Amino acid sequence: MPADAVDPFARLVAALGRLPGIGDKSATRLAFFILRQGSEYARELASALVDASDQLHLCPSCMNLTDRERCRICMDGKRDPRLLCVVETVQDLQAIERTREFSGVYHVLHGTLAPLEGVGPDQLKIRELMARLTASDRAVEEVILATNPSVEGEATALYLYRLLGQLGVSVSRIASGLPMGGDFEYADPATISRALQGRTPMS
Amino acid sequence: MPADAVDPFARLVAALGRLPGIGDKSATRLAFFILRQGSEYARELASALVDASDQLHLCPSCMNLTDRERCRICMDGKRDPRLLCVVETVQDLQAIERTREFSGVYHVLHGTLAPLEGVGPDQLKIRELMARLTASDRAVEEVILATNPSVEGEATALYLYRLLGQLGVSVSRIASGLPMGGDFEYADPATISRALQGRTPMS
Repeated sequence: MPADAVDPFARLVAALGRLPGIGDKSATRLAFFILRQGSEYARELASALVDASDQLHLCPSCMNLTDRERCRICMDGKRDPRLLCVVETVQDLQAIERTREFSGVYHVLHGTLAPLEGVGPDQLKIRELMARLTASDRAVEEVILATNPSVEGEATALYLYRLLGQLGVSVSRIASGLPMGGDFEYADPATISRALQGRTPMS
Repeated sequence: MPADAVDPFARLVAALGRLPGIGDKSATRLAFFILRQGSEYARELASALVDASDQLHLCPSCMNLTDRERCRICMDGKRDPRLLCVVETVQDLQAIERTREFSGVYHVLHGTLAPLEGVGPDQLKIRELMARLTASDRAVEEVILATNPSVEGEATALYLYRLLGQLGVSVSRIASGLPMGGDFEYADPATISRALQGRTPMS
């Protein structure tokens, strides 16, 4: 069946159904919702999709998403270029930004090492990180490894720690332990173990 | 801030966040997924949105969604025009079609009577239903009221039953009772009550 003979409704349901967590029933429900909204919303969503896809690219410095030449954070003269926080994803970068606590810059790996899934160092933005750290200006003094405290995130942090050891920058790892508002009763043993190991003197 | 100065990512998240059941976090997750897929998917979804919005309209006869002059069911010469099934929504029509049991035609009301929400008979496709039933060819012999067995659906069925009483067509209501595979232990009293009232002689 040539593409133009496909029912436009079925085509919209199929396209929506490719979104994660959206099954066939949800996609149908969304399609009906969109049609009920009238054409203005459908056009705005379509145009937002095309514009985001056309205009967003990775910042050549930190690999954050941006529609400018370099990202907002890298362009911000008030950020401290000596402190570099390595994160797995742009979502993680945004989560840290929401705390408004971090004044340094970022480097987004776009994943974690996962050898069984074919993700090695070359599939992550590690070459770009090394290029930044060995650049002639050598601005970075401390690298914070802020990959997730998951098996893959820990392994990636360890890999980076060994790689960066040669460069003479100090390398730190984010703290793991009980989350604020957490409860020993409901925490898993690995988290409790980390909380004990990572204890800090009270002052 | 003029529209063209809005960050394309934030604009995509905002547009996705207007979908039902999609909050801010889900919209962000979907936006990242779409960008990771590459531009082909974003373009296909955008084009499916615009095409569906442009090409789909209500069948002038039964109020089903269609991209033709009249809908596939109304155009199908094998369907029985004497048997007309009244449903609340196009989704309900599709649910009945999936059974492959119904050989008649449909009329989609596009809602139920809900006076408290300002939905009266004029907001539903009741005028169009009456026009069909009183048309000079008078093809319809039986109307099946297949609105949902909810408070609104029951009220709408009762309203239509009284309205259609003047026309000399026979009017039936779908059966309510325990769903197939259901269990008395878990059924609500209203459903059990309906199942008892609607009992049929075994043969």
